[in-house]
Amino acid sequence: MKKFSPAITALMDALRVLPGVGQKTAQRMAFQLLDRQRDGAQRLGEALQNALAVVGRCERCRTLSEHPICYICADSERAQEQSLCIVESPSDVLAVEQTGQFQGQYFVLMGRLSPLDGIGPADIGLDVLEARFREGSIQEVILATNPTLEGDTTAHFIADLAKRYGIRASRIAHGVPVGGELEYVDHTTLGHAFSGRKNVF
Amino acid sequence: MKKFSPAITALMDALRVLPGVGQKTAQRMAFQLLDRQRDGAQRLGEALQNALAVVGRCERCRTLSEHPICYICADSERAQEQSLCIVESPSDVLAVEQTGQFQGQYFVLMGRLSPLDGIGPADIGLDVLEARFREGSIQEVILATNPTLEGDTTAHFIADLAKRYGIRASRIAHGVPVGGELEYVDHTTLGHAFSGRKNVF
Repeated sequence: MKKFSPAITALMDALRVLPGVGQKTAQRMAFQLLDRQRDGAQRLGEALQNALAVVGRCERCRTLSEHPICYICADSERAQEQSLCIVESPSDVLAVEQTGQFQGQYFVLMGRLSPLDGIGPADIGLDVLEARFREGSIQEVILATNPTLEGDTTAHFIADLAKRYGIRASRIAHGVPVGGELEYVDHTTLGHAFSGRKNVF
Repeated sequence: MKKFSPAITALMDALRVLPGVGQKTAQRMAFQLLDRQRDGAQRLGEALQNALAVVGRCERCRTLSEHPICYICADSERAQEQSLCIVESPSDVLAVEQTGQFQGQYFVLMGRLSPLDGIGPADIGLDVLEARFREGSIQEVILATNPTLEGDTTAHFIADLAKRYGIRASRIAHGVPVGGELEYVDHTTLGHAFSGRKNVF
């Protein structure tokens, strides 16, 4: 059955590249864009083309940036902190920044070690990271990869690497989320919360 | 706090034009497009620009189409059916087409009457529809607007209009969905199912 004009069908297919967008959602999005949101659609098209043209990776920390060196890496005050926070993605940088607890610089893996998917150390920029360790200005790496199997493996791998350069490595704490209730926390997390307990006095 | 480069921020803002996409989702989409899906992002940008350039409205039925007359209105066999199905959106056309029960033509309102939002008869093309009634070739209008307050009002309004031209108007049946269970059906629907009951023998 012939459904829609080729241009509409092409737009629907293209929208499915977005995470979490299936056929029905793509259809709804396409109609909304072409019917009621033509200005917004125009802006979206331009923003996409522009971002694709100008956004690349920061040469120092690998995050998405439209300058060769991102604004955090370019900040000389932050460089003096001599601590490096390792995260998996640019959104994680934002999440850590929002805590206001960390003043140092970041290194963004843009992924995690996953041998089954063929993602090895070079794919997540560990060669770049090692070059950074070799520079000698870093005193501590804070491993803030996700607490998943692959995130943990990646953290271990980087901790080993740091050790070879005499750099202290720490892992962010895992436990019961603030405001969470014990009975709703999974047992692995609760196990982490017990093994990572701290003295109160 | 400075978050991301202006091009990434602009893309995130632009993505929020999509239905159901909030700030977090827009962020995730932007990173995925710029990091792992650059080809898909390129295709999406081009598909958007192309669709915006070529897709307009069918002059006869108002649906989205890249030709002045859409492929259903251009089909002379369907024109001979002399029945016109009135729906709210192009997705509804697709839904009715998938039943395989209707061989006539469509008229797509691209909305519904909603005085509170300032949407009157001319905004949903009822002037175009009246011109179509005046042509004299239509014998029946099937009112397939959504069974909402506004959809019902719109259906009534069009039925009155059809009456003035001596055209038979019918409304699609509302009742318990096939495969649905009575206890999970809301009482308005169940009420419709009772008042619309049919003799078995």
